[in-house]
Amino acid sequence: MAAAFLPATTLRLTPFSTLRFLSSFHLSNPLFRPQRRPIPEGFPANARRRCFCTAVSESPGSGEGKKVDNRYENRFGSKVGEFRRKLKIAEVKGGADQGLGRVGQSLSIMGWVRTLRSQSSVTFIEINDGSCLSNLQCVMNPDAEGYDQVESGSVLTGASITVQGTIVASQGTKQKVELKVEKIIVVGKCESSYPIQKKRVSREFLRTKAHLRPRTNTFGAVARVRNALAYATHKFFQESGFVWVASPIITASDCEGAGEQFCVTTLIPSSHETTDSSIDAIPKTKGGLVDWSQDFFGKPAFLTVSGQLNGETYATALSDVYTFGPTFRAENSNTSRHLAEFWMIEPELAFADLNDDMACATAYLQYVVKYVLDNCKEDMEFFDTWIEKGIIHRLSDVVEKEFLQLGYTDAIELLLKANKKFEFPVKWGLDLQSEHERYITEEAFGGRPVIIRDYPKEIKAFYMRENDDGKTVAAMDMLVPRIGELIGGSQREERLEVLEARLDELKLDKESYWWYLDLRRYGSVPHAGFGLGFERLVQFATGIDNIRDVIPFPRSPGSAEF
Amino acid sequence: MAAAFLPATTLRLTPFSTLRFLSSFHLSNPLFRPQRRPIPEGFPANARRRCFCTAVSESPGSGEGKKVDNRYENRFGSKVGEFRRKLKIAEVKGGADQGLGRVGQSLSIMGWVRTLRSQSSVTFIEINDGSCLSNLQCVMNPDAEGYDQVESGSVLTGASITVQGTIVASQGTKQKVELKVEKIIVVGKCESSYPIQKKRVSREFLRTKAHLRPRTNTFGAVARVRNALAYATHKFFQESGFVWVASPIITASDCEGAGEQFCVTTLIPSSHETTDSSIDAIPKTKGGLVDWSQDFFGKPAFLTVSGQLNGETYATALSDVYTFGPTFRAENSNTSRHLAEFWMIEPELAFADLNDDMACATAYLQYVVKYVLDNCKEDMEFFDTWIEKGIIHRLSDVVEKEFLQLGYTDAIELLLKANKKFEFPVKWGLDLQSEHERYITEEAFGGRPVIIRDYPKEIKAFYMRENDDGKTVAAMDMLVPRIGELIGGSQREERLEVLEARLDELKLDKESYWWYLDLRRYGSVPHAGFGLGFERLVQFATGIDNIRDVIPFPRSPGSAEF
Repeated sequence: MAAAFLPATTLRLTPFSTLRFLSSFHLSNPLFRPQRRPIPEGFPANARRRCFCTAVSESPGSGEGKKVDNRYENRFGSKVGEFRRKLKIAEVKGGADQGLGRVGQSLSIMGWVRTLRSQSSVTFIEINDGSCLSNLQCVMNPDAEGYDQVESGSVLTGASITVQGTIVASQGTKQKVELKVEKIIVVGKCESSYPIQKKRVSREFLRTKAHLRPRTNTFGAVARVRNALAYATHKFFQESGFVWVASPIITASDCEGAGEQFCVTTLIPSSHETTDSSIDAIPKTKGGLVDWSQDFFGKPAFLTVSGQLNGETYATALSDVYTFGPTFRAENSNTSRHLAEFWMIEPELAFADLNDDMACATAYLQYVVKYVLDNCKEDMEFFDTWIEKGIIHRLSDVVEKEFLQLGYTDAIELLLKANKKFEFPVKWGLDLQSEHERYITEEAFGGRPVIIRDYPKEIKAFYMRENDDGKTVAAMDMLVPRIGELIGGSQREERLEVLEARLDELKLDKESYWWYLDLRRYGSVPHAGFGLGFERLVQFATGIDNIRDVIPFPRSPGSAEF
Repeated sequence: MAAAFLPATTLRLTPFSTLRFLSSFHLSNPLFRPQRRPIPEGFPANARRRCFCTAVSESPGSGEGKKVDNRYENRFGSKVGEFRRKLKIAEVKGGADQGLGRVGQSLSIMGWVRTLRSQSSVTFIEINDGSCLSNLQCVMNPDAEGYDQVESGSVLTGASITVQGTIVASQGTKQKVELKVEKIIVVGKCESSYPIQKKRVSREFLRTKAHLRPRTNTFGAVARVRNALAYATHKFFQESGFVWVASPIITASDCEGAGEQFCVTTLIPSSHETTDSSIDAIPKTKGGLVDWSQDFFGKPAFLTVSGQLNGETYATALSDVYTFGPTFRAENSNTSRHLAEFWMIEPELAFADLNDDMACATAYLQYVVKYVLDNCKEDMEFFDTWIEKGIIHRLSDVVEKEFLQLGYTDAIELLLKANKKFEFPVKWGLDLQSEHERYITEEAFGGRPVIIRDYPKEIKAFYMRENDDGKTVAAMDMLVPRIGELIGGSQREERLEVLEARLDELKLDKESYWWYLDLRRYGSVPHAGFGLGFERLVQFATGIDNIRDVIPFPRSPGSAEF
């Protein structure tokens, strides 16, 4: 009985009885409630400026403490083990020799069975661990330890296994090396209802299995390329001296501007336990309005649509910054092009104009695309074969070709002269549509990325810097083949009086913009930035046509599962 | 008149009249509405699998297109300029020689005036560009170009300026080099109401000026160290073969579990234009309940409190993953230790047990702390002098000392034997309080980080793996001096029947957990992970005592400004 209460730690050097605790050990104690991970707490207020290291090493009244120290370390503590990377298939088969350098090595691999196929006395198991697209082919004879699990049918597609054996040169043509299995252990069986079988399933179906779809070739590759793009983003900006800034997600600021926003509230009494929320329980004023003063933030709060304005505050202090975080649109668009929740990258450069902005956007895109081509070769070949033929060529063009720029006015002339019928009218003052953008980058400029700049101010945001013509603003959109607009940016209006006049013109409340205007009151500088929808970049780099397939758990109208 | 309509582009090689557009150019056109940055759109559905690069280069019917191509490039396009890093003060003064290698160099620096001080015929201007803590001292004689701006009082604290001159060895003792100014340009004046003057202002006051506070020494240093910690986090996990996964922010999943959550809704008709939201306009059922079926997601949706469960789905496909994104708590705690919005890092390791988890957490913490000590020397010295004396010593200990582990049961014995009066009772089965945690790491183990493991299952979350004793779970908390718990983690329950029994025991609805349980049905593997509140890590590394001062725009009850 007492033994049952002993923790199964292998670390205690001097086991001792816990019997004495039993009397006070009540399951019904309200403190013994199940919890999720504890909420981060920061540290107690009274910790301010105390320095315990120094205190301890200088031993103010802790001559005894020092002794306790050693006694406790010897008695109770044991060292935390060294962190070692697991050996993964990417490391075994990766590299220029595709694993030939490891022939003769004895090793273990852990992963999930993709296929199993028996040929007379030899069994072939393809195992994948997600570290790369390709499986490790494992070859097993009936004399391998654990072969009975193959015979009993435990080694099915989806099962997790550990295989131990020796790397040998492969007789097949699909791979250079394979694993000659000496021992196999089934770690976790796979029920026969497993939906990710070898036969191909539709991406629509896999969206309903978002928790399992990363186990497929396509979604595994998307996850790795997405990861590479994210890391390359950080590398590019960090190497260029930019500081990552966390722009806020919840905002009660009145100057986020247009765009359908989600309301963030604690006013509606709902919980996971019940969806029965009485309307009457919502705090209201005498006039029958929602009483926002009783909401969590004391007024209406929303999910951000952009971190740009916040980014500007840090750029005008640290010079160059970037955000990389989630943003939201509550638009009721159930299309393959819209997400309610997506990640944005928004750099902001101080002491910079539109030319600097375009140069930065160009260098950024070339950097991350090159990074993926260099570091995700196998995945990119997969996309080139199965998702979009020629994608590697298309992306190589982006890296190698010089980007061009042209003014909006020239773009309009170019479109008007084009021997082509467009669905949407082409007229100075109208925004460019996807068909126009793609004509320009794909046809007129033969597949080169093109930046259009200096748009009419009426079709652009209030904060963009007015050009001297009084009609256009220093805005730019980068167009790329197949996608159209990938990046949008601008130089920001840094002149207080011009910005205030623009707010007046648009009947926007200047009071709401007090802090944004402050940046122009106190040491204003020319500055510029751009924004990039990260999922769009992933689409661009993978060729995946539905945006819901390039984010792990897509959110759209009616859909926030998992 | 026509000229006024020409865009001020310097790029058009062949200007042409835009007069013909004027007749159709109406400001009242509803299409000419102000917009924020265009919403990312993905690409059109009909783009599927077309490859335009190939099409163009192979010229199917585009012999003409090819000609158009060149013509347009010559006529309209010009190249996008090269992206060049601005020269920053960190580069001028950084390095082992503190800038002495640049003596004699002629260069320009752009930044903000920190102080200006005139001594007979010499004026000293301290300029800062946010790239590092220290200013560049600029020395100017009255014969410098633009000196009249100094005389007229335009060069005030907070103004933005460009200075051009020659680097010379400094006669002062505070820096090795300074800039002998040949030319000064005031880029943006600073109104006298500028709240960030030289005299020190309180951090409480600066919280009301969150848009300007990064221009102070403290908040600039916090921003740089925060950035370094974030980048080091990515570096550590990427170099260890982990894949970054974007866990969802909005979730309608029923299995997020406990914790106060924010509701995300479009049911309440509110907008930035008015806060008058009529209760009657909220859709309701006949029974007077909120009609969730009409909400954006068709049911109640919330802001996530943790990405762990989602992270597990990717770990059981890709082996090792990590999340790094915002999480939320709607707790009404207006303290220096709580934020409503904070960033979390949650790695998840497949084929891993609690020992692997502890080893990973230890290696991670040592890596990021070492990264900051190596890369933010000047900022850390600032914190050591002004915020927490001895912090460099404390952090060096974390990097150099071996971390220890001990079981919860041993920790309880240790606390019971401690010759110390605790406020909260020490008893097997009760959770450790901050005072206990800090006693253990600071006093009993003399400043070493300590990991406590194998906690009673009643005080831990449902998903933690039950130990063989049936009473404890494979959970771990990492305690560090001054903070107490910094990291919390566990091995996850990978046995389907044990997990289901636990859900039953806690009266949790198994149906809600269908996808989480699927991970145990299909190739389940031992896996483990941990979570870390990023702002807590920033506090740990900077010594800043209020958590609202380590995130750019803190959100707390009643406060979501900016």
